[in-house]
Order: sequence, then structure tokens, then C-alpha cells
Amino acid sequence: MRVSKYLLSTQKETPADAEVVSHQLMLRAGMVRRNASGLYSWLPTGLRVLRKVEAIVREEMNKAGAVEILMPMVQPADLWVETGRWEKFGPELLRFQDRHNRDFVLGPTHEEVITDIIRKEINSYKQLPLTLYQIQTKFRDEVRPRFGVMRSREFLMKDAYSFHLDQESMDVTYDAMFQAYNNIFERMGLSFRPVLADTGSIGGSMSHEFHVLADSGEDLIAYSTESDYAANIEKAEAPMPTGTRGAATQKMTLVDTPNAKTIAELVEQHDIAIENTVKTLIVKGATEEVPLVAIVVRGDHELNEVKAEKIEAVLAPFEFADEADIRKAIGAGPGSIGPVGLNIPVYIDHSVNVMSDFGAGANQDDKHYFGINWERDLPQAEVADLRNIIEGEPSPCGQGTIALLRGIEVGHIFQLGTNYSESMHANVLDQNGKSKTLLMGCYGVGVSRIVAAAIEQNHDDRGIIWPKAIAPFTVGILPMNMHKSHRVKDIAEQLYQDLNDAGIEVLFDDRKERPGVMFADMELVGLPHVVVIGDRNIDNGVFEYKNRRTGEKQEIPFDQLLDFLKSAE
Amino acid sequence: MRVSKYLLSTQKETPADAEVVSHQLMLRAGMVRRNASGLYSWLPTGLRVLRKVEAIVREEMNKAGAVEILMPMVQPADLWVETGRWEKFGPELLRFQDRHNRDFVLGPTHEEVITDIIRKEINSYKQLPLTLYQIQTKFRDEVRPRFGVMRSREFLMKDAYSFHLDQESMDVTYDAMFQAYNNIFERMGLSFRPVLADTGSIGGSMSHEFHVLADSGEDLIAYSTESDYAANIEKAEAPMPTGTRGAATQKMTLVDTPNAKTIAELVEQHDIAIENTVKTLIVKGATEEVPLVAIVVRGDHELNEVKAEKIEAVLAPFEFADEADIRKAIGAGPGSIGPVGLNIPVYIDHSVNVMSDFGAGANQDDKHYFGINWERDLPQAEVADLRNIIEGEPSPCGQGTIALLRGIEVGHIFQLGTNYSESMHANVLDQNGKSKTLLMGCYGVGVSRIVAAAIEQNHDDRGIIWPKAIAPFTVGILPMNMHKSHRVKDIAEQLYQDLNDAGIEVLFDDRKERPGVMFADMELVGLPHVVVIGDRNIDNGVFEYKNRRTGEKQEIPFDQLLDFLKSAE
Repeated sequence: MRVSKYLLSTQKETPADAEVVSHQLMLRAGMVRRNASGLYSWLPTGLRVLRKVEAIVREEMNKAGAVEILMPMVQPADLWVETGRWEKFGPELLRFQDRHNRDFVLGPTHEEVITDIIRKEINSYKQLPLTLYQIQTKFRDEVRPRFGVMRSREFLMKDAYSFHLDQESMDVTYDAMFQAYNNIFERMGLSFRPVLADTGSIGGSMSHEFHVLADSGEDLIAYSTESDYAANIEKAEAPMPTGTRGAATQKMTLVDTPNAKTIAELVEQHDIAIENTVKTLIVKGATEEVPLVAIVVRGDHELNEVKAEKIEAVLAPFEFADEADIRKAIGAGPGSIGPVGLNIPVYIDHSVNVMSDFGAGANQDDKHYFGINWERDLPQAEVADLRNIIEGEPSPCGQGTIALLRGIEVGHIFQLGTNYSESMHANVLDQNGKSKTLLMGCYGVGVSRIVAAAIEQNHDDRGIIWPKAIAPFTVGILPMNMHKSHRVKDIAEQLYQDLNDAGIEVLFDDRKERPGVMFADMELVGLPHVVVIGDRNIDNGVFEYKNRRTGEKQEIPFDQLLDFLKSAE
Repeated sequence: MRVSKYLLSTQKETPADAEVVSHQLMLRAGMVRRNASGLYSWLPTGLRVLRKVEAIVREEMNKAGAVEILMPMVQPADLWVETGRWEKFGPELLRFQDRHNRDFVLGPTHEEVITDIIRKEINSYKQLPLTLYQIQTKFRDEVRPRFGVMRSREFLMKDAYSFHLDQESMDVTYDAMFQAYNNIFERMGLSFRPVLADTGSIGGSMSHEFHVLADSGEDLIAYSTESDYAANIEKAEAPMPTGTRGAATQKMTLVDTPNAKTIAELVEQHDIAIENTVKTLIVKGATEEVPLVAIVVRGDHELNEVKAEKIEAVLAPFEFADEADIRKAIGAGPGSIGPVGLNIPVYIDHSVNVMSDFGAGANQDDKHYFGINWERDLPQAEVADLRNIIEGEPSPCGQGTIALLRGIEVGHIFQLGTNYSESMHANVLDQNGKSKTLLMGCYGVGVSRIVAAAIEQNHDDRGIIWPKAIAPFTVGILPMNMHKSHRVKDIAEQLYQDLNDAGIEVLFDDRKERPGVMFADMELVGLPHVVVIGDRNIDNGVFEYKNRRTGEKQEIPFDQLLDFLKSAE
């Protein structure tokens, strides 16, 4: 591709409204443009990457035995009514009416549509197992779309769905998909990790997420230093306390703590160890009868919202209570809340259950109790795993200790069980002629999100550094002053021709631009290999080659370049 | 692909609600399934064809120098307000609001979005010309979706847009696209024709449609028997009358015609030649002041609605007046209307203008006037080309006569001029630093519609007959009683392996089905080549080969099959 016939559209300035580096670089490198909040157009450079990601996903799906289909983006509402999601799904589900006032949705996912197809097409165990997938545009009306294509409203996804007569078959396909996902991200040249995941609102029993590792990732991954164990921190079980609850040795005393708005201030100002304090968090309850629930974790621990959400009395999705409601119900602000004398349900983490002589808010502003003891000063509360695991703690798998990494979720696989097939009556006849409800799996890849995640993981202060497998072009040709030097022009044109003939994807910067501008654009766009052609090199019969990732330069004789580029990573 | 791992989903019965043969066969061959009115899922066999069509379109666009992008399906309303189409576009434009009550549309086309991108990215003549395209899902809320994917609401389109400083550059790109479209349909193995087209509501100056020829086509194409001339009948100029208006020889007389509701009945019951009668059609006017307009064509001619719509006083899009309104304004029903004494604007076709002593409705029920003469009995009316050209008439190009063909429109290219760039202020600086409004072209291909059109053109009573280039698979393997004969199984498996290794796409029917069922399915799905493996053939060291299109069978020795299939069309 010649830049003169292309829409390069690079920008020098970092756009003010782009918060994350991938969004900034995608705008600056001319990959995407915003059409409206959460709606993006893919310019040529962006689309080339997107299509490569898509092609790798498709190839690995086909290899794993999945069969491609294509379902519509617009879905009839009646299917969503059948599964109950018409009511349950939040405003992210975009609902609208057609010209005949019939209800439709813009599909954020396709469990309903695929289950409807399968219940009509599949009636015998002989047609099973079957895995169908599509690579298709989805819409999710996010309340606050952000980070460019990382969390846009319209996005490209691969979604696969598998159908089984029994759990054994389900497990075989789940493993095949797990392996296919590993292949996908490996082939893309990304550093990634599969992790145990919570099944969340989509339901089901078994689930893994695939994360591209990046310091900027929104998710925390807890992994074992000595085994394969890795889990989203949302899911990773915190270890049980090793000791048991000590006997009470102190009286409970009310202490003035006017300047301690946080645990950190409390332990600094008063002679108490942070491990001897608790945090009491007031969250919204699941019903009108129980509007507030208290969750208590140790002062140095972090609340795990996903674990808390699993308590029946707690509202799902999880939400902290408003300060006004807390004050009205308890009579104090969030900084002074504690479990003593609390008139709402209290749930405590395992590590809080073994504490004695501890400190907590007194449910009066600017006051704490110290020397609190369970059963003496307050009733025993219900105990659960409610905190995040911490780096250095023993791994739940029993081997090694936990370390943490940040990741961006780009894939998610689930065993759904009969969650959808039951409500939609998707049954088949088994070997004995008996009707059985299908078991289902579902398997998603965020195709457009991968592009952003790859950039979060692969960039420097000059621009993007593409892994070869998903680079928009493999090689850039940078001729110096081609419009003045016939020799440079001839050799550049010949090289362009040769590389095209060899099936290598090339971006040939044939613009009348200053070398500095062309260099900067090439680094920004991030092609793996750049070949510079100038009068000085020609005299020596060599090209100047620069590797984008390592920054290393070397001179390569004319006749060796093609072989070099073919073998270069 | 093994049928046992695939979703073949063929059906014996012709679905009752499918009106056209392509829709019937697409349902029966398991290519698509209906999810709701005008919304279809593409099952594996259908999607394979769709992807081949898409790939050919993409390759030819790239070859022609167009650059691929991807715009969102959801578009902000404000762009449509800018061009005035928010008001002008009918209810086919699906409008909806997001969760923040902002207006959006589901894009039926992308002129607004692309022009918005280009006015931001292109500011100099140096960046021109540029042609961008996308292959993307569109939505058009048809009042009565029908014919399956031929006229569905959600569909796949290739839409390209070109941008130019001057008309010369516009013409060069238009020609390149014209050629690319020819290549596309030629490569697909379809019989097609490019025809001059009306520019219609999208506006612009120059336009061609590409039609796949099929007896079931909705469009009529008028072409010259002796030149390249071909035009949609909507557009083809009717020849001017050769004679001039004769002198009046009869008196105008009022005749009772109680049983003549049609022209055919009139000429049969009364001694008058059809060429001496006129049809007067009352159509809706463009304004409230002129609610009705009369269009007069000769009794044996057909009104051309597209030509009529070009009269300023006529409503666009064209609509016939309601009978009640006609009766109220004129005092008679549609069967008795004529131009004499008519109190609404009258427009007559050229051939009507040269008539004398002619018959027409009398604007009284069950009465006609005979012996009517212009200027004597009624004022001279405005004259225009308002009728369809007829087979056998001289071609507008001056060479040969006109013949007619039926076609299905699958492509349409336009020169848009400044229709969109003007209202959206898409300007660039030219060589002299002066601001110029961009010229635009737009070029559409109905990707999903091509699949249906190809079937309308290529089928018989047993099923589809795919051209090789867009067949879902190239070869079908039909083993006879493989589950009983080890020899058949071994040879079939080996052949399947060999063909896969040779990069030939194969559908291997490994089901435990009766041969008759397997044969019928293979003919229905329409693969170009079928190889039958049975014990009898094996004894002779040959495969039985059957060509789907010709129906010819032949025996091919084991070791010659691969070469035969590679070279077979």
C-alpha cells in the first residue's frame, strides 16, 4: 500500500479526551475515529488489525470443530421475554420498536437467538455435540462508554455456543475451547493468562476468563508462584485464618476519634495495629424489607464485591449504600460505622471472626470502640469469604504463594448448564428415545477489544509496537527524499514491488514529507520492520533496517533483505 | 467438512410462506432461517456462500484501489439532520433513542457518516482522489419484507464512497468501479448486465445498475440488439413518434360504455383501435394546492412511474391517487377518466400528442368520448416522455432495436456530485489554496442479495446449481453404505483426506442415511461436483462422478480424480 493512496490520518497531538494509552494511540495512529459516544469508525490501519485478529479467531474456531453462522443484530423481543431477560437486563439492553410498533432489541449477546434456532433444528442426540459461532457486531448501551474501543457501545465479538446431551460431552468441548483460546492469544503474540472466573449474571457452573496482561488492566489476577493456578481476584478464595479467636483481655471503651476519618488515620493517631481494626461497609440490600446490609472486613483487607454480592440479602449487582441512607438508618457517617449495636444484618469475613480486643466505628460520628469482643459486646455474626486475597498469602490450590498481575479481559468461556435451554424448552431425544434438556456452553472473544488490549501491552513513548501476527503491515519502506533522488525512487519502487510479490504486506511512504515526519509516523503506527532507503545507503549497496520493538538498527545488503524479512519475527 | 459435525438442516417440504424459488431453496437447503419478519440467521451453508461473495467483492475493490474501513451500524441523528434526510427519509429509516434520550438511526446507508469523517480527515487536494469502502450490516425497516434475504430488513452490503477535486478525477474512478463491478459478477460466474439507471432519491448525475439476469427478476432491462446499450426500463428513453398529428376528421361524440371498465374491453366492444385510445391516470400531486395530476399515455402503452415522478407537480415518491379522492374531484371512477374538461393539470406522453380523432373517458361513469382532437376539444397539454419503451422499438442509442430482459439489481453506482458534500461543508484546498467542495461518488453491492439472485438464476427442480466460485463446497463425497462396508469407508476417508490436503473444499456425507436421502440432499444443496463411492465402483478402481449442472455422470479412475477436479469448472 502506498501512503499516497491510503488514509493514514496520523496526529501529532494526544487527544485531550482519550484517557488510556491505547485509545490515545489508536486515535493518533489513525486507527479509529469517534462518531458519537461509544461509536467508532475503523479507519484503514485499524481495520487491518481488526481483520487479522478476526482471521486468527476464525481459524482457531474452525480448527476446534466449531461451525460458523451469522445471526442478526436486531432480535425480536419475544425471545428475551421467554428467558426473562427482557425484564432482568438493565438499560444496557437497547430496546426499540419498529414501524409496526413491535418490540426489538439490538443484540448485546445471542443466547436467546441461538437457542431458538437449535430447538427448531436439532431434535436427536445424533446431531450432537454441536458448536456454532459467529463473528458479529454487538451493541451494549453502556451508561458511560470510555477508553475508546475498549468499552464502546458497538463492538465486534466472536460468540460461540455449544450443545450437549451430557456433562461428559460438555467437558470435552469446554476443554477444546480452552485450548483454542490459548492458541488464539499465543498466535497473536500476546502475553496472556487464562484464569478461573466468576460466572456472574450470565449464570452457569464453570468459567474461565482470558486476560491480556498489562499494567493498565482493570482486572487483578491472583496466581500461584508454583502451580498453574490463576483466578480473577473476584473469584480467588482467600485462605482461612490459621489461628483461632483469642480470649477477651480488654474492656470495650468508647474513644473520641475526631480526626480519624480513615483506618490509616485511626491507626496512626491511636495506639492500635491495623490488623486489630475492622472496616464496616454498608451496602444495598436485595429487598425493601432489608434495604441495608453491613459487611465487615479486617482493617488491612479489601472488600471483594463479587463475593459480597453472593450473600442472598445483598443486592445484585452490588452497590454501596448512599451516605444519606446510612446516616438516616444508623445515625453516623461512613467513617464511624461499626458492628456494635448495629440494627441491620451483619456479615463478617473469616479473618474478622477470629479477632478479639479489636477496634471499630461506634455508630456515632467521631467515635470508635476499642477492645471489642464477639459474643460479649455484640452477637456472633454470619461468617463468609468476603475479602480479596493478598499477594504473598498461600495459594488456594495448596502450592506456592499468591502473586498479582493486572489484566484486560479479552475472552470468557462458560458452562451454562440448562440456564437457557430449560426456559426455552430446547430438548432432544436421547439414545433411549427420552426427551432431555440440552446442556449449553458459551464462549466469547472481544475481537475489537483485543486490538486495544494489544496496544496497552505493546507500546512505548513513540507509539505502538505491533506483534507481527496482528500488525497492520509487516514492513514499512521509508525512502529519503525520493522526490529529488531518482536512484532512491527506483530502488524504493523495486523493493516495494519485490516485497508485494513475495506476499509481504508493505506500507510504502511515498509522500513528499520531511524524513522526520515520516519516521515519526512509522514509529507511531508501529510496524515491526522498517527499511530506510537513502542515497548514502545505496552507495554501500545496503538498506538500513530498523526493528520497531528492539530499536536496533542494522545494514542489510540489497540481496539479503527479502530472506531477512521472511525469517524475522 | 463432515456432515456429522455440521449443521446441514435440509428440508424436504417447500415452506408455505416462501414466495420465490430462491427463498424456498435457501430454506430447504439449510442456508438461512427466519428469526422475525425480514430478519434472518445464516446457517453454515448459507454463510459459506455469503463469505465467498464477500471475499470476491473485497478482492476486486482492493484491486481497484479502494481502501477498506468499517463504520458503525448505529449512527447519530444529528448528521442526518445536517443533510435534511432526518426529515425526508421515510419510515424505512429506523429511528430510536438511547438510554440518555439521544436520537440515533440504524444505518440504511452511510453517506452522512463517511462525509463527516472525510471533512475532518481530508483538507488538501494532495490527499485526493480517495475511495473508501466497507462490507457491513445495514438495516432498512421495509413495510413488507419479503422474498427472504432478497428484500430483508437487515442485510449485508458493500458500500464505497469516492472523493474528488474535479469531474475528470470523478470520471476516472467511476470507470474503475464500473470495471470492478464487471469483474466481480464475472468472477462469480453469473450472467449479468450493467444498465443505465435513474439516479432516484439518492440524487446525482450519472448512474448504472448491475443486474443478475433471471426470469423472476423484478426489474425490466431494455437493451439494444446491436449495441452495448442497456438501461433499466425506468430510465430507457422511449422513441419520439415518427409521424405528426393528423387533422381532425371526426366530431367528438359521447358514447355509453357501461361494460367497458378497461381499455381492452373498450376496444373489443366498440369499433376503435387501441392505438386510438388513451389511458388517463390520476396520481398524487406534490403540493396541497395541486393534490391531483393527470398523466395520459396511449391505450397500448404503459405508464413509466419513474419518468412521471420527474414532473415537478407530481409527488415523489410516485403514488396513484385514491379512488375516493378521484371521485370527489372529478365525479367519475378511474375507468371513465379522460383529459376532456379535466380541472387538474394534465401531462401527456409524446405519442399522445400526435394523436387525432381519439377516444378517452368522459369523466362521467360508464361514458367515453370518441373523436377527440387536441386544441379543438381540449387545450394543448404539456408533453413529456412518460411511457415505457416497448420490445422491437428502435434503441435510444440509434443502433438496433430494443429487446427486454428481466433482472435482479445487485449493484448500483452513482456520481453524487456535491449532493452531500455541499450540505455538510466537505471542502478541501485546491492547488491554488482555494476552498473547493468535494465531488463524491457512491458504489453499492447487495452482498446478501447476490446469494439469492445467484439461486434465482441457477437452479432446477431438484435444487440449487452453484457456480463454482461461490459454491458452499466444491465437491461432495457420497459413500454408499459406508457404515456397513469397510472398503467404502476406507476409500471415502482417504479421498476426504486427499481433497482437504489439496485445498479443495469438501462436504463429506458421513451420516448413516439411505443413499436416496443423501443424493437428494446433495442435489438440493447444489455442490458443483459429486463423487460417489460404492462397492461396485471400487471393484472397477473408479469413482462415479456426477456434474450437478449438466447432470452428466462418468467413471474416473482413482488416480485421476484429483487432477480432474482441479481442472473441472
